[in-house]
Amino acid sequence: MTTAPLRLGIAGLGTVGTGLVHLMRENSARIADRAGRPIEVVAVAARDRSRDRGIDLSGLRWHDDAVTLAADPDVDVVVELIGGSEGTARQLVTNTLRNGKAVVTANKALIALHGAELSALSSAHEAPLLFEAAVAGGVPAIKLVREGLAGDRLLRVGGILNGTCNYILTEMRNTGRAFSDVLSEAKALGYAEADPTTDIDGWDAAHKLAILAALSFGRPLAFDSLHVEGISRISPADLHFAQELGYRIKLLGLAREVQDGIEAWMRPCLVPIASPIANVEGVFNALSYEGAFAGSQMIEGRGAGAGPTAIAVMADLIDLARGSRLPVWGVSTPANRVECVPRGTLTGEYYLRVTVQDQPGVIADIAIILRDCGVSLRGMVQHANDKTPNGTVPLALVTHQTDEHAMLVTIQRIAALDSVVNEPMMLRIEAG
Amino acid sequence: MTTAPLRLGIAGLGTVGTGLVHLMRENSARIADRAGRPIEVVAVAARDRSRDRGIDLSGLRWHDDAVTLAADPDVDVVVELIGGSEGTARQLVTNTLRNGKAVVTANKALIALHGAELSALSSAHEAPLLFEAAVAGGVPAIKLVREGLAGDRLLRVGGILNGTCNYILTEMRNTGRAFSDVLSEAKALGYAEADPTTDIDGWDAAHKLAILAALSFGRPLAFDSLHVEGISRISPADLHFAQELGYRIKLLGLAREVQDGIEAWMRPCLVPIASPIANVEGVFNALSYEGAFAGSQMIEGRGAGAGPTAIAVMADLIDLARGSRLPVWGVSTPANRVECVPRGTLTGEYYLRVTVQDQPGVIADIAIILRDCGVSLRGMVQHANDKTPNGTVPLALVTHQTDEHAMLVTIQRIAALDSVVNEPMMLRIEAG
Repeated sequence: MTTAPLRLGIAGLGTVGTGLVHLMRENSARIADRAGRPIEVVAVAARDRSRDRGIDLSGLRWHDDAVTLAADPDVDVVVELIGGSEGTARQLVTNTLRNGKAVVTANKALIALHGAELSALSSAHEAPLLFEAAVAGGVPAIKLVREGLAGDRLLRVGGILNGTCNYILTEMRNTGRAFSDVLSEAKALGYAEADPTTDIDGWDAAHKLAILAALSFGRPLAFDSLHVEGISRISPADLHFAQELGYRIKLLGLAREVQDGIEAWMRPCLVPIASPIANVEGVFNALSYEGAFAGSQMIEGRGAGAGPTAIAVMADLIDLARGSRLPVWGVSTPANRVECVPRGTLTGEYYLRVTVQDQPGVIADIAIILRDCGVSLRGMVQHANDKTPNGTVPLALVTHQTDEHAMLVTIQRIAALDSVVNEPMMLRIEAG
Repeated sequence: MTTAPLRLGIAGLGTVGTGLVHLMRENSARIADRAGRPIEVVAVAARDRSRDRGIDLSGLRWHDDAVTLAADPDVDVVVELIGGSEGTARQLVTNTLRNGKAVVTANKALIALHGAELSALSSAHEAPLLFEAAVAGGVPAIKLVREGLAGDRLLRVGGILNGTCNYILTEMRNTGRAFSDVLSEAKALGYAEADPTTDIDGWDAAHKLAILAALSFGRPLAFDSLHVEGISRISPADLHFAQELGYRIKLLGLAREVQDGIEAWMRPCLVPIASPIANVEGVFNALSYEGAFAGSQMIEGRGAGAGPTAIAVMADLIDLARGSRLPVWGVSTPANRVECVPRGTLTGEYYLRVTVQDQPGVIADIAIILRDCGVSLRGMVQHANDKTPNGTVPLALVTHQTDEHAMLVTIQRIAALDSVVNEPMMLRIEAG
């Protein structure tokens, strides 16, 4: 094994990038001992040269255009910390792999959306592509799935993959407050970004799920076929009804191999209060999986921050320095990109919340629609006390096993009733 | 990279060994794809040839004496699943490494007690030694510490490492029943072994802690210097007092680098009810650590069974097949074996439970001893209702920060009082 230093070019000097430079300087002897050779930063790329980042960047080659890092002859590994699935990040990673150089990235959107083409480049040019930091937090999810579970046949993978959403749902339940109110507070506390769209609309968690699914099943998902729903339409009434019915609401992701492809979605679900996943609270994340041999397992850990993300990037770099050369999805011969099965073909139990004018015949109207759509009711909850000053009242319904297509027709017809105000809310019920 | 099959000799055909053979047959194509080459069993060793293990062993070379597997010319890797820190297992692993062949083992006692000499052999003969299954369960603890956290400086590692003990303590608290009663039930349910000594006396968890500490700090512990206490003396009164004082009792392990070496112990502790570790319940395990960069993290997962253990062994085998060659403790130049600092030099807060005759002057006698030993009280709880028919009553004391030597003297003197019945119970209070 070579003992020459592994030379890095770091693209993006935000909190993770500067944290990584700091970490490598602080722990250089320890890292060399663990890696079997020194790991050194030789070049960086960021937009603003003059900004004070609290670290000394003198002696490092500066690239104003990050993409030129890909061709820097002194760079063995490009560390991509720019983010975003398109533009500079995508161009830089593509060019670096084409040049036969290794890439380490924390970019979950890039891997989720373009993993198929990037893994083909990685394989064609024998250029490793590593992304432990893309699904980070306290749980080393990628190492677990790609290496720890490599001997098992995974039947299901998923879990609670976004700490911001889990924090908001936990707070809403604990305090009875509205989504927008708790979101503002989460921003103030630093648990939500200034622009929280990627988190609350489910995309961040969906990117992580797509990556875990690709590793679990040895083939990338066609990301745009994944059904993704966020949490912004969840109301205190939903949390209250869920509790009363014996459930909690979690933004849950799941991927499993089915006959015609892969079933995969990220959406708020009702899970039984006693299930382990229901008890993952606040900013915690949980990776849940079922292996043919390992059985059902759930691993819970704290969500990511800059420190754990830098450590995850460092783990990939040390693996590279030691000569580890795993294929991108862990398999020698990855299968082709696979479409998720259409949402309508899913089957399951469902929760419906409908806000209605409190007047005679409303329940009958709804019951007739359900009957006509072949949806069988398992339970219904309504409280006279919940009646608002303008005469509306929320109504919760729980169905027996049915197919999602029938449910989609059902809510469309219910929404069209004169006595129904607002869009009905439909959530899956999962075993957790 | 070679594409020749990796040929295994498996020593020990209990549930894990037979499970492993079954797994490799069921998933052979998948494993070859993940490993980049086939992995095949060519030889086995077990005592009884005639026993029906539910798997076809024809065509495999049979060794009546497991130690001879080390010299089998057709075997590339010996999988040691015999167990025990001495005898056959130790001899087999030693000889295999001396012959320059790789070893994969699930034997935590062997690695905890003889890891220093085995790692020296592994390094001298360039023979890999892997043991992911030694600290198994749903948490891939070894991969996490050795690879995932390789870039960080770990300040502390530990957690709840024995599911049997955690199950018993959880049940005792939930039901108010005595230790022996819950232990019998745990045996009946399969949560405790027929001979549960290794679990309930803390040795199993201590072995795991010693391995995690060696990986965290890059040097093996002198295992016999580790302070180990089990849970058999914990009474319902202790659990009740702990609850009243705002704590739960957990069998907790901790290792951290201190000035004069390493502080390491496995012992029941009081942890604040609101701490994450206090909420790890039942058969669940938790790995807790603090990294200079990663910060404080806790990962919770289900304890081990035969399935997850076989999967962990398989992960090591796939790593080997792919050419991974990590040093035993993850560092190129491991430090020497290190003694744990003596128990008496620890400082902390303590809980004391003393059973006394309910008569005048008892509290004064105890208070005087505490004063004379320089131990300052933070709180005391006694309930008249707790008085037994024979006139004794339990008394709980909680101290301010003090050193453990003072506490050991204190309990010795308290135990010598005429009015004190039974041995006093002393437990550390930890932040969790």
